[in-house]
Amino acid sequence: MNHQTDPDAFTDLGFARLDTGRAARTGDPEVVYGEGKTTEQALELIGQLRLAHPDRPALVTRAPQEMRDAIASAYADQVTVDDRAVAVGELPIPAGTVCVVSAGTSDAPVAAEAAFTARVFGAGVTRVNDVGVAGVHRLLAARASLEAADVLIVVAGMDGALPSVVGGLTGVPLVAVPTSVGYGASFGGIAALLTMLNSCAPGVVVSNIDNGFGAGVFAARVARRANK
Amino acid sequence: MNHQTDPDAFTDLGFARLDTGRAARTGDPEVVYGEGKTTEQALELIGQLRLAHPDRPALVTRAPQEMRDAIASAYADQVTVDDRAVAVGELPIPAGTVCVVSAGTSDAPVAAEAAFTARVFGAGVTRVNDVGVAGVHRLLAARASLEAADVLIVVAGMDGALPSVVGGLTGVPLVAVPTSVGYGASFGGIAALLTMLNSCAPGVVVSNIDNGFGAGVFAARVARRANK
Amino acid sequence: MNHQTDPDAFTDLGFARLDTGRAARTGDPEVVYGEGKTTEQALELIGQLRLAHPDRPALVTRAPQEMRDAIASAYADQVTVDDRAVAVGELPIPAGTVCVVSAGTSDAPVAAEAAFTARVFGAGVTRVNDVGVAGVHRLLAARASLEAADVLIVVAGMDGALPSVVGGLTGVPLVAVPTSVGYGASFGGIAALLTMLNSCAPGVVVSNIDNGFGAGVFAARVARRANK
Amino acid sequence: MNHQTDPDAFTDLGFARLDTGRAARTGDPEVVYGEGKTTEQALELIGQLRLAHPDRPALVTRAPQEMRDAIASAYADQVTVDDRAVAVGELPIPAGTVCVVSAGTSDAPVAAEAAFTARVFGAGVTRVNDVGVAGVHRLLAARASLEAADVLIVVAGMDGALPSVVGGLTGVPLVAVPTSVGYGASFGGIAALLTMLNSCAPGVVVSNIDNGFGAGVFAARVARRANK
Amino acid sequence: MNHQTDPDAFTDLGFARLDTGRAARTGDPEVVYGEGKTTEQALELIGQLRLAHPDRPALVTRAPQEMRDAIASAYADQVTVDDRAVAVGELPIPAGTVCVVSAGTSDAPVAAEAAFTARVFGAGVTRVNDVGVAGVHRLLAARASLEAADVLIVVAGMDGALPSVVGGLTGVPLVAVPTSVGYGASFGGIAALLTMLNSCAPGVVVSNIDNGFGAGVFAARVARRANK
Amino acid sequence: MNHQTDPDAFTDLGFARLDTGRAARTGDPEVVYGEGKTTEQALELIGQLRLAHPDRPALVTRAPQEMRDAIASAYADQVTVDDRAVAVGELPIPAGTVCVVSAGTSDAPVAAEAAFTARVFGAGVTRVNDVGVAGVHRLLAARASLEAADVLIVVAGMDGALPSVVGGLTGVPLVAVPTSVGYGASFGGIAALLTMLNSCAPGVVVSNIDNGFGAGVFAARVARRANK
Amino acid sequence: MNHQTDPDAFTDLGFARLDTGRAARTGDPEVVYGEGKTTEQALELIGQLRLAHPDRPALVTRAPQEMRDAIASAYADQVTVDDRAVAVGELPIPAGTVCVVSAGTSDAPVAAEAAFTARVFGAGVTRVNDVGVAGVHRLLAARASLEAADVLIVVAGMDGALPSVVGGLTGVPLVAVPTSVGYGASFGGIAALLTMLNSCAPGVVVSNIDNGFGAGVFAARVARRANK
Amino acid sequence: MNHQTDPDAFTDLGFARLDTGRAARTGDPEVVYGEGKTTEQALELIGQLRLAHPDRPALVTRAPQEMRDAIASAYADQVTVDDRAVAVGELPIPAGTVCVVSAGTSDAPVAAEAAFTARVFGAGVTRVNDVGVAGVHRLLAARASLEAADVLIVVAGMDGALPSVVGGLTGVPLVAVPTSVGYGASFGGIAALLTMLNSCAPGVVVSNIDNGFGAGVFAARVARRANK
Repeated sequence: MNHQTDPDAFTDLGFARLDTGRAARTGDPEVVYGEGKTTEQALELIGQLRLAHPDRPALVTRAPQEMRDAIASAYADQVTVDDRAVAVGELPIPAGTVCVVSAGTSDAPVAAEAAFTARVFGAGVTRVNDVGVAGVHRLLAARASLEAADVLIVVAGMDGALPSVVGGLTGVPLVAVPTSVGYGASFGGIAALLTMLNSCAPGVVVSNIDNGFGAGVFAARVARRANK
Repeated sequence: MNHQTDPDAFTDLGFARLDTGRAARTGDPEVVYGEGKTTEQALELIGQLRLAHPDRPALVTRAPQEMRDAIASAYADQVTVDDRAVAVGELPIPAGTVCVVSAGTSDAPVAAEAAFTARVFGAGVTRVNDVGVAGVHRLLAARASLEAADVLIVVAGMDGALPSVVGGLTGVPLVAVPTSVGYGASFGGIAALLTMLNSCAPGVVVSNIDNGFGAGVFAARVARRANK
Repeated sequence: MNHQTDPDAFTDLGFARLDTGRAARTGDPEVVYGEGKTTEQALELIGQLRLAHPDRPALVTRAPQEMRDAIASAYADQVTVDDRAVAVGELPIPAGTVCVVSAGTSDAPVAAEAAFTARVFGAGVTRVNDVGVAGVHRLLAARASLEAADVLIVVAGMDGALPSVVGGLTGVPLVAVPTSVGYGASFGGIAALLTMLNSCAPGVVVSNIDNGFGAGVFAARVARRANK
Repeated sequence: MNHQTDPDAFTDLGFARLDTGRAARTGDPEVVYGEGKTTEQALELIGQLRLAHPDRPALVTRAPQEMRDAIASAYADQVTVDDRAVAVGELPIPAGTVCVVSAGTSDAPVAAEAAFTARVFGAGVTRVNDVGVAGVHRLLAARASLEAADVLIVVAGMDGALPSVVGGLTGVPLVAVPTSVGYGASFGGIAALLTMLNSCAPGVVVSNIDNGFGAGVFAARVARRANK
Repeated sequence: MNHQTDPDAFTDLGFARLDTGRAARTGDPEVVYGEGKTTEQALELIGQLRLAHPDRPALVTRAPQEMRDAIASAYADQVTVDDRAVAVGELPIPAGTVCVVSAGTSDAPVAAEAAFTARVFGAGVTRVNDVGVAGVHRLLAARASLEAADVLIVVAGMDGALPSVVGGLTGVPLVAVPTSVGYGASFGGIAALLTMLNSCAPGVVVSNIDNGFGAGVFAARVARRANK
Repeated sequence: MNHQTDPDAFTDLGFARLDTGRAARTGDPEVVYGEGKTTEQALELIGQLRLAHPDRPALVTRAPQEMRDAIASAYADQVTVDDRAVAVGELPIPAGTVCVVSAGTSDAPVAAEAAFTARVFGAGVTRVNDVGVAGVHRLLAARASLEAADVLIVVAGMDGALPSVVGGLTGVPLVAVPTSVGYGASFGGIAALLTMLNSCAPGVVVSNIDNGFGAGVFAARVARRANK
Repeated sequence: MNHQTDPDAFTDLGFARLDTGRAARTGDPEVVYGEGKTTEQALELIGQLRLAHPDRPALVTRAPQEMRDAIASAYADQVTVDDRAVAVGELPIPAGTVCVVSAGTSDAPVAAEAAFTARVFGAGVTRVNDVGVAGVHRLLAARASLEAADVLIVVAGMDGALPSVVGGLTGVPLVAVPTSVGYGASFGGIAALLTMLNSCAPGVVVSNIDNGFGAGVFAARVARRANK
Repeated sequence: MNHQTDPDAFTDLGFARLDTGRAARTGDPEVVYGEGKTTEQALELIGQLRLAHPDRPALVTRAPQEMRDAIASAYADQVTVDDRAVAVGELPIPAGTVCVVSAGTSDAPVAAEAAFTARVFGAGVTRVNDVGVAGVHRLLAARASLEAADVLIVVAGMDGALPSVVGGLTGVPLVAVPTSVGYGASFGGIAALLTMLNSCAPGVVVSNIDNGFGAGVFAARVARRANK
């Protein structure tokens, strides 16, 4: 089985069937979701991914501290560690630009996950932080960064209003990410999610609550295609 | 029983106990909610209200066309008719200013109800229409109108994002009114309601979905007090 | 005011403030949402859009039959009429390809809206119909069409499972559109919406329920950028 | 009272009325739900069940570690211990085959509960793990196992899409089990539950979220009947 | 393409891709969902199904009166018409027994759909009507019918309590079908659905609200297998 | 079978199994729920109820106009007709007093159903209308009526606040009935239902939304027992 | 101020306004809700209640262990301690009988709270435990206890089906109490709550989830009145 | 940049863009939301706020104990510490009166936050505690305090009924604040929120659940304007 070219390849590890054919099918290898896995399982999966796809970094998302530490010490010279994720292997040369915009300081972890994922998936990344709509002049001051990107990821909790305003300022494709930041009737991010799904700015699409990873994958693909 | 001064006054009409003591208690007479009442009932209640409070207009809200027509012909020279409401009796001299701001053309009926109610309850009213956040420059161009008011009513459906942006531009007290405009995940106004309850601009308060009446009453009271 | 170049342009028509600066800001002119507007209002807005943006078609979405007929007879030689929408003016030369994939025959109206919008916004469009996951071989037989596109719009109601399967077959950026097709616990599209937000295929983003328009705008922008 | 044959038998233990007539009525004895019971209560109930039904194992579900340990040491030579459950007494000779299919590695505990329950209730069990729809070729490679079974239990969290795909590949009766695996808009398994209830593949039935036990009981009964 | 034996067969009719391979894959041909289709489309699909599967009846579910009439007159001597469904072609020789139990008179349409579907899918069917738990003696009087079946379909709206009681009386595999019968906090069948998902009787599985069709398909498959 | 004394009696009418044993079990005969039944079915059921229980009126609830008219003409001299219900046969001598209190004029139909049901089930009934908490003096003026009752039924929509206030004024047992009166975030009576379930006055119990019938049955039983 | 006879009495303690007039208004003194209060506050409130109502026990509900211990040692010879509540002062002579019926062993704490409250509020109490509908013969065996009561409290979690079955067996007034027992789609007791609100047995009324206290107060009042 | 007068001022601190222009735009400086911030970040933000707005206190809300202690020791002689908030700098001379009314002792923390915020934002504050509607005479005894205020904040959990009663007694503008106090069907404050949104007293507006801060800001602005 050639894991580089066979779209139907997979590796049966007993506890998991690693989808090594995914890179041949979709252009990007499978990713390890750290939550609920043991560090040993994560290390075994990384090993298999490095074997199958030596030219692409192996990404572990939502990895607890202890797992990140173990990976970092096992792959010391080829690891990139972020707040909640780890990449093992050389990062790709960036193609295109994803700009990650966040509304408040509490949205930072989700924005960081989106940015890290987009970078590992091969895009360049810029950041615009803390430009919530209660002080919209801060956003207006950052218009040049928005326009310079191939795709935007806009992260917000509470009222989730930022993507609507950004989407009215620019036609750059925009992925909105609701976060679970807030209390009371924010209902763990439902309020922000609904706001974004109902955005009055045309062309806003949405990821799951707190899903910086998914937005990063999507945005990297758009950015790479815009810069083929 | 003196309906002008007795806070415990009421008039038992069989089908209703008209709270004629409300004006003595709250400064404003009871209002007739037209929906679900017959035209005859509405006319009888107006008659009683005119008797009890000759110096204040009698307001009928959510009145169907046929009820509005019947009232208009019964009280031809002292009636003010709006899209969904009717006031019988001379309108008070306006005190203070309520500015009603609306996000989209579909929000117009709720904005109109708020404006009419505020006027009947004794405030002056200004309007700023169709300034949704997908084109925030339209709102910025109307800042003077916002600042000139004693209180703002901001009406929006779909993403309900407008109050957050307005609340970041001005410190004028702001009542947000979600509307049921939208489809899919707007869930009949729930999306806009949640957005407004979670507004990242401090000091935004909210009325029920489509409740222009309640916002108008509240705003008129604030405006009147600011101009005693 | 130059509506072609001034990002802060707008036209105050009384009942609406047409955002004529939107094209300068976002690259695409404002669109008329037909629902809740009179035919006269729609015609006036089309007239203003044609004046401000003579080089781009004016699009009316969710237009009732009578409105579509009136527009078609007013602009006979430059109109393109679809099931629920109308475009007035020459369609742009298509740039890039949006492939619209739908799960069942009942999802056709939403898929059609997405396809029409993407075309009016300047992309080429292909279609793959009725390839729901209960017969996944139909989808596998259409893999070439998926791979040939710059971006996919995947439309599904009921279980909303199709985007997850498509997202596992290809790395082409994928926008999922839940529809309100179904009954009982489909809850008007909530079931499909949640499925798509939780897709186990990485990089799936989602629009509002039945929002073929929004998905079309977004996809056209991605397709155009991939083919600059 | 003959607990083997009297359908109206029960044993009043003060804190519980053990339904010893259930085996006569339904063919299967009552089961002890461990959660919220003391180890002493569990042991007393097991004792009563062994007395009433010496030919059938006594099953304790959702038993905490300490309870499982105490039971294992009290019934050392006739106990079968699983991750969350314990059976005391010889397991029945398996009749028919239940195949338990799971979508992701995080769904393993629920799949294990289903498999263990089906086995204790008298069916043979096979397993197909980690064949989520994001890599549908893994599932296609396991078609023979699906077809060889009398009934399928398909376990999935997040988007819950696996049962729809399996249900399109085979006509073997299929019970879907949603799990609470996921975050954000998975809402503790609601997303997967709704997906499964709305499956576009005909003939999918559903158990409660995380209810591997119930699915196991049902499937064992179907498998046994198919092999009378 | 041999529609009898090729699991990957399908017929592209433009408006639909008829899954003619489904019978080879699952043992049962595709079914026409009448709602939202024109009578012409339904007739064309029936024609194709009769061609592909001459030995199995073609089933149209949720067919409006006019569609049922047109089918009945087109296939006069080989049609079986029910309240909401039609089958064209000779019904199979019944194998095994499905017993459909319903709680109240208002649940009759859903129970009828389940019974008709099970019969068309090849099972024998018995009925026990109006045995809701507010008069549980009516159910106890029907125990022999329950025990004589290979599988039960239990249909109930409002409190949805019937499956729990039936599931405590017999070990025959039981599929519960919630209906949208009720008002107020029945929320269109949500109350009954939740009751059934949380049944305290082990081994109850559930279909979508009002989904008699799905329960009928599932039950027929179980009944057929129990009588191979 | 003696329908007066046999608790396990029932009459199988084909479309229904009339629970004629209910009176022997519960003291009150079964009731006909008119909605969804034909007039012929209702008349047949009334006939059977009159036969089985000649000493108690037969009650039909939620009967449409045409059904009420047909019953009234069939049983002209022994019928009592209300807004939505009909009773055939002499009403019992009233025992005890149920006081039905309603918050607003729109709650009248539900209050009327409660009152009529309580009377038919053998209690005396008093009414206190339109005493909503926005004018709490109206309620305070009616305290004597509250205290004179054996049990209270308190009906309210919108905020559903009335039962909490009444429950603080008197210790007479209180059944709260939420109505679907309201709009926006009243969600068809959910708001009032939740208010009542969370009443800060101890001892408030609640019926389903708009379920005046159920409250009437319960209250009549309490009133009768208090006056044995 | 005479706390025995003045309905408008209250005692301002700074952190609380103890409603000492409640006994004069409703026949029962105010109760201390332990949760969220300090032990000192609870003791001070008990002291005030003993002063105001020396002839009635002071009840503290939802009292944590430490609070219960402190109260028990402060009022050693006149205290009655239950699992979650404490009563200080001699219990009243019981009048009438409340029968508390519970579905499963996990429902015991809520059933205990109901029983203790009813006893402290002056009723006699009987218990019927663990008679869930999955073994309905256990309930049928307890019919005499049901019939001997003046009022029933029926406690159930999970499917919440027990009150419907009990309500079909007897006409004794029945208060249903849903508990938060269950998992998955029980949603913390929502499933059981909805089941009970939609009970097909007429005359079932419902308290808040886990609210044994409220049901106990209500039931005691009914029982006392039936035995004046 | 002049932070006193430039409405577009902001200070980029890397982790945050402090909106120093907010005071020029809205009359009130930005506030630090303590939750999720480090003590160091809070101290840096306070320092910047003191620099930009030396004449206004810097407010930190939802500050954990350790953060409050650190601020108190850093700004010993100019700090005001409340239960969950801290203000650094001299409090403004109070203008106008906000009266904070609370329903129960458990609502005290939210009421305290509202009162503290209103005071820091420049209003005078009075308090009326523990006047829930189960003993409405306590509220009636406090009418003078209500009437003396310029604006009311009414805080309640559980049934949330207090604002409706207060709103019927006085015409002083009223902001209702639902709290998450309660259990079961209070759903973390949803019950109280819905009650308040549906208040039958006209002119009640609502803040987010537990949002004493937002209500305090709003009320202070209304009170200040009423006393210009």
